[in-house]
Amino acid sequence: MMNEFELINHYFNWPLSDPSIELGVGDDAALFEIDADCQLVTSTDTLSEGVHFFKDALPGDIAYKSLAVNLSDIAAMGAKAKCFTLSLTLPKLDEIWLKEFSESLKEASEFFKVSLIGGDTTKGPLNITITIMGVVKKSKAIKRSGAKNGDDIYVSGNLGDAALCLKKMNEGINPNSSELNKLNQPAPRVKLGPALINIASSCIDVSDGLEQDLTHILRASKVGAIIDSQNLPLSDSVKDYLKTSQDLGLPLCGGDDYELCFTSDQSNQMEIKKISESLKIRITKIGVINNSQTLEIRGYEGSSESYQHF
Amino acid sequence: MMNEFELINHYFNWPLSDPSIELGVGDDAALFEIDADCQLVTSTDTLSEGVHFFKDALPGDIAYKSLAVNLSDIAAMGAKAKCFTLSLTLPKLDEIWLKEFSESLKEASEFFKVSLIGGDTTKGPLNITITIMGVVKKSKAIKRSGAKNGDDIYVSGNLGDAALCLKKMNEGINPNSSELNKLNQPAPRVKLGPALINIASSCIDVSDGLEQDLTHILRASKVGAIIDSQNLPLSDSVKDYLKTSQDLGLPLCGGDDYELCFTSDQSNQMEIKKISESLKIRITKIGVINNSQTLEIRGYEGSSESYQHF
Repeated sequence: MMNEFELINHYFNWPLSDPSIELGVGDDAALFEIDADCQLVTSTDTLSEGVHFFKDALPGDIAYKSLAVNLSDIAAMGAKAKCFTLSLTLPKLDEIWLKEFSESLKEASEFFKVSLIGGDTTKGPLNITITIMGVVKKSKAIKRSGAKNGDDIYVSGNLGDAALCLKKMNEGINPNSSELNKLNQPAPRVKLGPALINIASSCIDVSDGLEQDLTHILRASKVGAIIDSQNLPLSDSVKDYLKTSQDLGLPLCGGDDYELCFTSDQSNQMEIKKISESLKIRITKIGVINNSQTLEIRGYEGSSESYQHF
Repeated sequence: MMNEFELINHYFNWPLSDPSIELGVGDDAALFEIDADCQLVTSTDTLSEGVHFFKDALPGDIAYKSLAVNLSDIAAMGAKAKCFTLSLTLPKLDEIWLKEFSESLKEASEFFKVSLIGGDTTKGPLNITITIMGVVKKSKAIKRSGAKNGDDIYVSGNLGDAALCLKKMNEGINPNSSELNKLNQPAPRVKLGPALINIASSCIDVSDGLEQDLTHILRASKVGAIIDSQNLPLSDSVKDYLKTSQDLGLPLCGGDDYELCFTSDQSNQMEIKKISESLKIRITKIGVINNSQTLEIRGYEGSSESYQHF
């Protein structure tokens, strides 16, 4: 039977390729440095069984998503992720589960070039907390508070796909693999975020639903907005669903898409088009910031249904 | 009923007094800078119900200890803690629990001058993960790997008090308030750690038991050691207990003391005595590093009983 230290060494002590990280897993703390003209950007997100994933979710999907949701937060600041810690609470030392979890996490960490530098393992109900650290040039981070009257409002990718997949699963309908992918393997916008520095006046990642997350920007920036539900970027799956249900609450309030919602001065329209083309990411203008202090959604009569954590 | 954002704002959005922290709680990520001649030191620790605290533990004690165990890791590197993130998984939104938890955490964060800069709240079985960030001058951090043949081995404070308290509680005996304090309100050695820079060749915090934690130093440093169980620093409570039980496993393998175990060249004896006097912290020489690759404990016949996480 492995103890905690053997477990960590076996599954999570990967070679580090970032020379600015002096010490990773295996001491009381990790040790690294950042460039003198940079600031550190930090975020933490927990995934908990029954809330963020189903009881029978694949360990590899859980690992990927735990990292992806944190990468999304760093991207939403316009920053680049650098390293992360993992705190893993497990009901038992299940080596098959751990092997799949750690292999997927390692693969994702290599793909996104972000180093695992420390962690903790604990016995208890399954709970995965990742704290991620990134860097951004001083005073360049994109906050929620910078939206200005007259700014355009944009969103990347499509909205509602993860919510549609979840809805199908809850109703006992098997989603197809592309739909499942949207829920289990969301693509954090790690290139788009940094590309929006000096372009976006504010930015947030759409994790709890556009309506709720855009409201965070409005409150932090002390502004209002009009968006038009006709302009929401939708996949064919979601368009099909809307034809029969007219349930605009799904793309407006559904969570887990991990797209970026950002605001930008109208003069940046061409520049944003270029970014969209060069990164091959759909970017759609969905509305305009105003001084109303409220969020008006044209063509939507429903109430707020965005994700509530409690 | 509060939602997550109201909850965070109400209980955890405290004013920040550290001017190097530009953004704390309330955006996708926090934003701060560190001095150009410093490295960042990061550690994470989870406290889980039934493992690290009893079901009926006071929320204020849980909050304090969650921060203290992380502060201890940073101190063991010789570093100074700067800020932390909190990931809180709660079975329900219990406002009385949250009020006590957050007030205690705020008090501790002010006492130790460490800022809460971000976090996440999730619904699920109680689980508290804190990730702490600190700073240390470049190349000055005290690692586990620096112990050398001939170095003295020291430990701060007393050993076994937390384990004795836990033992009493498990046996249905009420510990007195001073004993309870050792378990619930451990004092992380935040001043001693940084004072040992240029003095200690290696350092670790004794969280899982001296025998196990010292073994981590020996393995990382590729050395061995002899310690003498007669030299272990003990409180009167533990001495009394040993008179009847002869159970040296308690101070040797008992966890949760959060003292520092460190090694140092013999020429530093006077300097260490001065540090002990100026910080008013008992520091005891308990043994010597050798080249044996094993840990010999004179006067102890028992087997390893240090804390196993699984």
